[in-house]
Amino acid sequence: MDRAGLLYSGGKDSSLAALLLEEFYDLTLVTGTFGVTDTWRHARRAAEALGIDHTQLALDRSVAVEAVETMRADGYPRNGIQLVHNHALERLATDQTFDVIADGTRRDDRVPTVSRADAQSLEDRHGVEYVAPLAGFGRSAIDTLVARRLQIETGPSETLPTGDYEAELRVLLRDRGGDVEAIFPSHVQSITTGR
Amino acid sequence: MDRAGLLYSGGKDSSLAALLLEEFYDLTLVTGTFGVTDTWRHARRAAEALGIDHTQLALDRSVAVEAVETMRADGYPRNGIQLVHNHALERLATDQTFDVIADGTRRDDRVPTVSRADAQSLEDRHGVEYVAPLAGFGRSAIDTLVARRLQIETGPSETLPTGDYEAELRVLLRDRGGDVEAIFPSHVQSITTGR
Repeated sequence: MDRAGLLYSGGKDSSLAALLLEEFYDLTLVTGTFGVTDTWRHARRAAEALGIDHTQLALDRSVAVEAVETMRADGYPRNGIQLVHNHALERLATDQTFDVIADGTRRDDRVPTVSRADAQSLEDRHGVEYVAPLAGFGRSAIDTLVARRLQIETGPSETLPTGDYEAELRVLLRDRGGDVEAIFPSHVQSITTGR
Repeated sequence: MDRAGLLYSGGKDSSLAALLLEEFYDLTLVTGTFGVTDTWRHARRAAEALGIDHTQLALDRSVAVEAVETMRADGYPRNGIQLVHNHALERLATDQTFDVIADGTRRDDRVPTVSRADAQSLEDRHGVEYVAPLAGFGRSAIDTLVARRLQIETGPSETLPTGDYEAELRVLLRDRGGDVEAIFPSHVQSITTGR
């Protein structure tokens, strides 16, 4: 089987993406980290709960700074999050470990998104296959499958410990005097605790 | 598990879509037919080779006539094929048998396509979930998985017996005096013969 690396936060979307891919690839869950906090460990714990290999991927802190400055200028997080996601995919594609790189982007997501042109560009430039197993699933289909296949804990984004980029970006944003609560309004996050 | 109906031609794409869905749904492969020929039987044979339940779905012959007239007027098949695919999805969604309806449309397909807005409209109007398991897979990723997971036979579209709409549309087009070879240039088709 080809080796696949899936960007993994420990949340419900990337965990469901993992279940879709594990039958078809030699799968490793990969959590990007800027080294700002150790929140990637929450993703590792979720990966252990799924019983799937996990590794971390070092991201460039200058990209986090650029993302946070973009968010401050915009007053909302969308473009900054997209910057970070693009960087993580590029890093994963140049990692040389994986034949296939993947993420948990969904049909109904507004951010991050990977267009068909972006996907083909990643593949052509790096000689990898890019796969988004949830790209053809809507919100309702995903919620149904998550309820049937995963044990998750949900809670407000400020307090639930998860492994996604947001935790590190929040810290950097606060350190740089940004209005964290305005830019990242509270929303419900999830962390996977089992199958 | 929820009941899912997947539009199925017996070709490599819809067969790979079936392998992706079978772990998550109570899956039935569904081949649309206008009753013009019995080419749907080739899809049934492919479904038997996969060991997955199969049924046929009666399509409205007036839609086939409209599709063929569209192709004659256009001089190419794209819009006609899209008409037929939309009709098949609508029929599948109103069939009342399935909680989830699905097709084998791929990221890199030009036709048929189902946009996010089309997908959400189908779901909202009919109270079903629409799933396109290959929407996040590019051509290379699909070819790799097909080579690893399926036995397929390939051949020119004019002679290889497959279960897709094209066979019936060719017959109707010829009956109505259309230039079949100009509108459907020869291309490589596939039919699944096993796992």
